[in-house]
Amino acid sequence: MEAGDRQARHFEEELTMLRERLLMMGGLAEESVRLAVQGLVQREPATIRRVLDGDRAVNDLHIEIDERAFTLLALHQPMARDLRTVVATIKINTDLERVGDLAVNIAEAAERYLLHPPVKPLIDIPRMGDVAQRMLRDALDAFVKRDPELAQNVLDRDDDLDALKTQVFRELLTYMLQDPGTIEPALDLLLVSRHLERVGDHATNVAEDVIFIVSARDVRHHARE
Amino acid sequence: MEAGDRQARHFEEELTMLRERLLMMGGLAEESVRLAVQGLVQREPATIRRVLDGDRAVNDLHIEIDERAFTLLALHQPMARDLRTVVATIKINTDLERVGDLAVNIAEAAERYLLHPPVKPLIDIPRMGDVAQRMLRDALDAFVKRDPELAQNVLDRDDDLDALKTQVFRELLTYMLQDPGTIEPALDLLLVSRHLERVGDHATNVAEDVIFIVSARDVRHHARE
Repeated sequence: MEAGDRQARHFEEELTMLRERLLMMGGLAEESVRLAVQGLVQREPATIRRVLDGDRAVNDLHIEIDERAFTLLALHQPMARDLRTVVATIKINTDLERVGDLAVNIAEAAERYLLHPPVKPLIDIPRMGDVAQRMLRDALDAFVKRDPELAQNVLDRDDDLDALKTQVFRELLTYMLQDPGTIEPALDLLLVSRHLERVGDHATNVAEDVIFIVSARDVRHHARE
Repeated sequence: MEAGDRQARHFEEELTMLRERLLMMGGLAEESVRLAVQGLVQREPATIRRVLDGDRAVNDLHIEIDERAFTLLALHQPMARDLRTVVATIKINTDLERVGDLAVNIAEAAERYLLHPPVKPLIDIPRMGDVAQRMLRDALDAFVKRDPELAQNVLDRDDDLDALKTQVFRELLTYMLQDPGTIEPALDLLLVSRHLERVGDHATNVAEDVIFIVSARDVRHHARE
């Protein structure tokens, strides 16, 4: 086997490993969001605790993936689509780390929320959680399959999340105006809805990176207009 | 002149240009935050409008810088510190774009806030704006000067911003509990304080990237612990 072939094979192996670690990171981040929302809705302090304690794993993986991507750039100096893939991995890694942070923020708000009696049965917030998680999962799926249509589909769903957030806001505002006793816990629910909206924003970023890898076309900003 | 020298000089020129564009982007993002807070505090709809209309310039620059950095990686395949600089530029560019988005979010909240009578004289929010802007400016300054001490100093100031945010929250909560008429505008002030906190987070990210470039040491997460 030629040295060039060997190096190419080595690069492919490293790239596969990088992708696997990134997916693992995505799975952890998504699971943290799911648990944080579950802990809030089902009022489970132990579940909330798990999210707060699990942050370290996401952070460790964040650094590991960054180092892998960086080493890959330094050693193999990939070109064209491979280069776009590695650069996109660095960006997606950042987005996933922020999703992990947002799960922690949701868990912190949930912890405070549980100190009060429930403001109302939570319907739209778990719905927002479902939409945001699915957007994230599909964006990562689109990354693995290099599927720009699935990525575009993720972009289209951002409006659903925005509509739910507006609905949550209006409803909670009504509660707060009617009964000042609900103000403090309602503020935490508002925060949670904002955090979930931002999980959706990060899924959108990932989807845009997928379109960039596949088509070398930059859809950012244009897609948002 | 050797071909290699010519290429090295070409690379240096491109890198300088990349840095200049990034600083321009930083200046625009910082100015947008400043104007958004000024529009809110001084109740100036025209200033708020300027922020909302100026978003396009930041977005265009974001795409241009990304393309420049990417082309630099593809054509010159830089090594070691040069590679770290280009990768960091891609990350910093993302952070600055988000700061631009946050300025728009602040301007949107300010626009809604002006529909109501003022809740209170705003003291801590402009203070938060000053701290966040200075953190961002110093982080970019640390990037240009490759100054890890200045970068570390930016990281240390994140706690000031957090303390101010907590103070703003407590005070606004008191207003809301006493007078439900203040709930709606106070919610927008709370949002603004969160947005400013996030501007500080992005400055922190930039500072961490600077430390990464200079020392190849990854301070993320460790620094936060």
